[in-house]
Amino acid sequence: MNFCSQCGAPVDLAVPPGDNVPRHVCRRCGTIHYQNPRMVIGCIAEWEGRILLCRRAIEPRLGLWTLPAGFMENNETTAQAAARETLEEACAEVEIDRLFALVNVPHIHQVHLFYTARLIGGRFGAGAESLESRLFAEAEIPWQEMAFRSVSFALRAWLDDRRRGVFGLHTTDLAPPPPTPPG
Amino acid sequence: MNFCSQCGAPVDLAVPPGDNVPRHVCRRCGTIHYQNPRMVIGCIAEWEGRILLCRRAIEPRLGLWTLPAGFMENNETTAQAAARETLEEACAEVEIDRLFALVNVPHIHQVHLFYTARLIGGRFGAGAESLESRLFAEAEIPWQEMAFRSVSFALRAWLDDRRRGVFGLHTTDLAPPPPTPPG
Repeated sequence: MNFCSQCGAPVDLAVPPGDNVPRHVCRRCGTIHYQNPRMVIGCIAEWEGRILLCRRAIEPRLGLWTLPAGFMENNETTAQAAARETLEEACAEVEIDRLFALVNVPHIHQVHLFYTARLIGGRFGAGAESLESRLFAEAEIPWQEMAFRSVSFALRAWLDDRRRGVFGLHTTDLAPPPPTPPG
Repeated sequence: MNFCSQCGAPVDLAVPPGDNVPRHVCRRCGTIHYQNPRMVIGCIAEWEGRILLCRRAIEPRLGLWTLPAGFMENNETTAQAAARETLEEACAEVEIDRLFALVNVPHIHQVHLFYTARLIGGRFGAGAESLESRLFAEAEIPWQEMAFRSVSFALRAWLDDRRRGVFGLHTTDLAPPPPTPPG
């Protein structure tokens, strides 16, 4: 952030009075521009014992598999965000069940939520951000080609809970991944 | 939003290609400025059967009672946000237990999370944004002077669960409140 979105003047990084975190503060109008984590919301949509995954057509992680998920928008609820993202990315209508996983990813300022859901009518396709969508039985899940650690976490927890016959709420915090070795 | 925070040029409201929601788009550099819901996170801190509430020293709802809670910051987890807000508003250290309530407030672009927690050592005070803090037994809770509906929801659910002896995860969606009658 370089300029004030209210008045267009340059902003400085400064700790406002009574605060203890540096914020972008407008030199002219004094507006304090807070920055807050964003929510990424998706769902674990089941159909006849199989799970719906999408292969990403966009960066990051182009070509890898993910649960349908994306940034929550203003004016919607968390469950509506999960259903909307599934419709957009997998052309699939779902009946949202309940909140299943919350994953903190603090180093990228995100909180990921995953809902359990049931695919309606077994119908799905590939939205603009997906190369393809597919239903996977447990043994078919491409663990080595998963796009995001939060998705692998939620999926493993779901499979474990299905085995036990009891679905809970699962939470975890992700640290930054180790650096990729050069070459 | 009137100006681009990247380059300082005016922004227009327009639906970007492939999108279906109007966004603030910079006339000069083309940056799309997404706006997303913010998380408000707090906790239900218990001590010897009583619950810690704070009386607000700031607007909105100055003078009314609330659970310690506030906007989640970048670079922290949801549980850390709950503990930090409790320290800031009630000068109280807590041991965070688990996620207890998720309340959508879509008309103000917020998602409220409340954690169950245990007050450490029974110590608390009044932070800069609180007039006072106090421990309340169930019969003493000032329901008519509660600052926010999400707080009342979480508190009632907690008291119900304590009565049943089982703590679950509680979710609800709040609609805009009815308009205040004139005069």
